[in-house]
Amino acid sequence: MHIETVLNGLERRDPAALARAISLVENQRDGFERILSYAHTRLGETAARRIGITGPPGAGKSTLTERLIQALRREGRSVAVIAVDPTSPYTGGALLGDRIRMESASTDPGVFIRSMATRGSVGGLAMTTDEVADVVAAFGFERILIETVGVGQTELDIARGAESTVLVLVPESGDGIQALKAGVMEAADLYVINKADRSGADRLRQEIEIMLGIRRGNAFRHVGPHHGTRRRVGPRAGATDDAVTAPPQPTWEPPVLATVATAGTGVDELVAALERHHAFLVASGRLGERRRRRLVDRTRAAVERAVRRWVWEETRAEEVIAARLDDVMAARRSPYDVATEILDQIRTGVTR
Amino acid sequence: MHIETVLNGLERRDPAALARAISLVENQRDGFERILSYAHTRLGETAARRIGITGPPGAGKSTLTERLIQALRREGRSVAVIAVDPTSPYTGGALLGDRIRMESASTDPGVFIRSMATRGSVGGLAMTTDEVADVVAAFGFERILIETVGVGQTELDIARGAESTVLVLVPESGDGIQALKAGVMEAADLYVINKADRSGADRLRQEIEIMLGIRRGNAFRHVGPHHGTRRRVGPRAGATDDAVTAPPQPTWEPPVLATVATAGTGVDELVAALERHHAFLVASGRLGERRRRRLVDRTRAAVERAVRRWVWEETRAEEVIAARLDDVMAARRSPYDVATEILDQIRTGVTR
Repeated sequence: MHIETVLNGLERRDPAALARAISLVENQRDGFERILSYAHTRLGETAARRIGITGPPGAGKSTLTERLIQALRREGRSVAVIAVDPTSPYTGGALLGDRIRMESASTDPGVFIRSMATRGSVGGLAMTTDEVADVVAAFGFERILIETVGVGQTELDIARGAESTVLVLVPESGDGIQALKAGVMEAADLYVINKADRSGADRLRQEIEIMLGIRRGNAFRHVGPHHGTRRRVGPRAGATDDAVTAPPQPTWEPPVLATVATAGTGVDELVAALERHHAFLVASGRLGERRRRRLVDRTRAAVERAVRRWVWEETRAEEVIAARLDDVMAARRSPYDVATEILDQIRTGVTR
Repeated sequence: MHIETVLNGLERRDPAALARAISLVENQRDGFERILSYAHTRLGETAARRIGITGPPGAGKSTLTERLIQALRREGRSVAVIAVDPTSPYTGGALLGDRIRMESASTDPGVFIRSMATRGSVGGLAMTTDEVADVVAAFGFERILIETVGVGQTELDIARGAESTVLVLVPESGDGIQALKAGVMEAADLYVINKADRSGADRLRQEIEIMLGIRRGNAFRHVGPHHGTRRRVGPRAGATDDAVTAPPQPTWEPPVLATVATAGTGVDELVAALERHHAFLVASGRLGERRRRRLVDRTRAAVERAVRRWVWEETRAEEVIAARLDDVMAARRSPYDVATEILDQIRTGVTR
């Protein structure tokens, strides 16, 4: 399919064009940046909300996602799901969850499901997920559920593209304590204890609430992966302790919700909590902040990608590496010496 | 500690300097490339072998690693362990395993253990692990065990820095089938069925052997993450089917070993198999090939890192992004337009 055909198809809201556009973006085929530029111009017109759903394998995220689809459909919302499994083929999460949900939802044009596998390097997965979400949002889907397996840094980077992040935990597995140790739980906007009918649910809730109490008591919050910066958030950011000058601002206390996804219990409450979180993001100005931050990150990543491609395809970098390899093998030069040589050439404009 | 002090300390084989050097490399502090260049020049003199140990959480890798340390120490080898957990804080692998082994081995100067956490982006973890292994090898450790949790792409990228990769699986978990599906098992040189006294061990062995049979029947093998290239390996690579001109070359049939790490069963056999694999790598010329490939990869990565740093620290890229952000927010430009603008400036030598 020619790129113009894909763009026309997207404009006509042709599902085949959507699938094709996503493949082009996922595999960075020729013209994918035109699709992304097109999607970017359409994003302002859409009301898509991005909801990240993350948690360890076995937490029931796939079932919960399926229940969320049903609940959102009952409200008349179109729903897209992007299922990402960056961790390991052992979890089987994305593919299996995808297949199950495909079966139950495939006849509904208001539902779109796509799973993304880890291909090649993991590094760009968060960016690609974000970009696929852009395409889906530009197509007109109103809610985009981004489901990731695991709660490592990669998953958090992926979830960071969402406006609301839901961390799904289950009793019994000691998840709470582990997550506390890792500092990972900091990142979520909503907490869900799934399989809440099991023993240990109360204990897990206590652990989460203790963690949230600690977090409230601490005015510093990690806000992004770039350079590990921390900044003060909340109404009194930048104010001294006795100066009460800032107007009161809405605050967000992350709720701890209980669900039994298999039975559908607690799902409507989760939908309502997501609605409240969105209202908070709008009222507090955070929605705009998050969008701004996302676009800066996106632009930086696009620059790095473009520069990388340029270096390998249009400069003499590969030739220099080949010419120096014997020296490097014989330890007469190091890879770092060669990198410096190449950078010097690039810097002074010596390209082929 | 000043960088010269660290380099002198490494030359004197001071353990404190080693720890410091690794920290500098891990965190890419000023001067870390000098340490790496120094390490690179020493690598030719050392006989360090790098052994990757990978597998899903719960496979008993930490215990197996501890047993391997003991066995290698009995042979008089100095051993370093680099434990990496790229997947998730939920596995707890690296930290816990580290602590346990620290206790049992910390008084032995012939053993060095270091765990590496995922900090910030996962993208560079494989490279950093490789570089830390260089420093440890240059210091004189003869065997370097690189233990990773999980068998996703990141773990395979990390394992790729090793000369011999051991995939540890356990019965009961259905690992074999999952790995078959994912094509992940292709990458290992040795297979270990740990907890081999459990039921299901025979079935897992059959699954692995079926997979290996399929692999033997298939002359194409995936050889690297770069651009997903595939190439023909083995003596007849490039030869036509009826031209028998190449001399016979040693081949490697990946063994499927059984261990019970907790009891120490099968560990000596694993050590012997690793020895055979090393002999094969030397005899077949693969050791040189792998080293060559690793150094090309390393140099490419060093170039990308140097270029990235240059773009953000010495060009006007950040200023351009800031100047265009309002346009991007208002969808008058896309992040990709801005990336193109910045690349054009870099390309034509417009730097500040």
